[in-house]
Amino acid sequence: MDVAARIESSLADAVLLAEASGAPPRLAAAMRHAVFPKGARIRPRLTLAVAGACGDDRPALASAAAAAIELLHCASLVHDDMPCFDDAETRRGKPSVHRAFGVPLAVLAGDALIILAFQTLARVATVAPERLGPVIAAVGDGVGVPFGIVAGQAWECEPKVDLSEYQRQKTGALFAAATVAGAAAAGHAEAEAWRLLGDRLGEAYQVADDLRDAVETEESLGKPVGRDAVLGRPSAVAEFGLDGAVARLRHLSEAAVAAIPCCPGQAMLRALMLQEAQRLVPRKLATAA
Amino acid sequence: MDVAARIESSLADAVLLAEASGAPPRLAAAMRHAVFPKGARIRPRLTLAVAGACGDDRPALASAAAAAIELLHCASLVHDDMPCFDDAETRRGKPSVHRAFGVPLAVLAGDALIILAFQTLARVATVAPERLGPVIAAVGDGVGVPFGIVAGQAWECEPKVDLSEYQRQKTGALFAAATVAGAAAAGHAEAEAWRLLGDRLGEAYQVADDLRDAVETEESLGKPVGRDAVLGRPSAVAEFGLDGAVARLRHLSEAAVAAIPCCPGQAMLRALMLQEAQRLVPRKLATAA
Repeated sequence: MDVAARIESSLADAVLLAEASGAPPRLAAAMRHAVFPKGARIRPRLTLAVAGACGDDRPALASAAAAAIELLHCASLVHDDMPCFDDAETRRGKPSVHRAFGVPLAVLAGDALIILAFQTLARVATVAPERLGPVIAAVGDGVGVPFGIVAGQAWECEPKVDLSEYQRQKTGALFAAATVAGAAAAGHAEAEAWRLLGDRLGEAYQVADDLRDAVETEESLGKPVGRDAVLGRPSAVAEFGLDGAVARLRHLSEAAVAAIPCCPGQAMLRALMLQEAQRLVPRKLATAA
Repeated sequence: MDVAARIESSLADAVLLAEASGAPPRLAAAMRHAVFPKGARIRPRLTLAVAGACGDDRPALASAAAAAIELLHCASLVHDDMPCFDDAETRRGKPSVHRAFGVPLAVLAGDALIILAFQTLARVATVAPERLGPVIAAVGDGVGVPFGIVAGQAWECEPKVDLSEYQRQKTGALFAAATVAGAAAAGHAEAEAWRLLGDRLGEAYQVADDLRDAVETEESLGKPVGRDAVLGRPSAVAEFGLDGAVARLRHLSEAAVAAIPCCPGQAMLRALMLQEAQRLVPRKLATAA
């Protein structure tokens, strides 16, 4: 099974749990709406790429870790899109969850997706019991307090914002979790050594996201664009200009590749990361800088 | 350390994580507000009582399980109190989290408390790696889909409600998780056998809650009363009358005690459960039925 199919299959298995007889059907529908059809799945692909480079000797655990990372990403989108935050009407080219199902079910679908991430990991505990703790710690720390994506989002509620913490927590933390969890799932002796790769990829992705927000259309992106400028949010484009932001993205991608720890599949992973980095540059800017 | 001190200490350790330097301080304050000062702590006491009856040979894991159960209970209160659900202004005698910190931080504090429950468990993984999966599965299933408390709450968003599923999921599921997780943390060979005790205690607690809503004052309870009647919610008092509800509570408590599985501390646990059951009856009704 290729990586994309493996991710979709793991996510499908997870979401199916919500559709058991006797469970509230609209909650299950809202969860499915939040997870499918797929987005870029960039974080779970990263988890599986790292697990693969480390030998991937417990594929069921790596698949569960990848699914958990994506479920948490989807949960954060559901809650961040709500009227009390971004008030986004569309996501992945269709109505956001609260527009389709109402705010109460958006709150609950987000909650249920967070929990589902950990249920998904618990279900494969027996394939490598001693690895479950490190994987869950990596995943939990990537989304929770003190420095995960929920903490990152909470900076929007502070009177005084630490911008670098805000960006690192809101975006970088889940990329770091994706790499560390992938390495831990494959039994890498120094899973924490993979954090730097995730941090740098997260920063690169944040710049790429700023670029897309500046140059793409709502149709091509499937969500509203130009939001950074409208909301006065910090952005690499505002800070460095378009060409400068593209150059920064390339620099960060190279720094990320250089941070890949020693592992059996190091060369292969380097090639894959460079290829993925190319895809981060919006097509209409691919020749710039 | 007695049970109450052990629970408060575990919760204090957990919440302290949010207060690290570099984390958003208002999120940490909202989380602390949601967890302290203490409520009845009835669910974590149940977890420790079951773990104790099963030998409690890994106390750090049992304490973490108890804290996780209570953190998830607090998270559900934070989200359920929000304007899109119960719109409750007070909780435990002070403003609800969204009244004190605003809706965005209520959403995020609830999210962070859910995640903190699993982080807390992951942190003690090494004391008994092979038990972590069963404990996390019990905890996750008690709060998530298809039959946990989030699913229970979601029945309020369905056009057609299955009342028995609603009550069992919304209240009973976390009691069942509290018993199963306590048994699993202590290495009981048949942790699932403890579910029936939790189910029955959860049902008893639901009846007790209905009684309190009917006969207590907002001052004595620390939250609004008479809400079931105002919102037309199903209630044991509406169904059986006051005396009938007290009788039902007593019947359920006895059935719960009878469901305690064989374990080293069975006699002690029976005595403890009967004593706890007495406390469930509101004082002004304690001589009725």
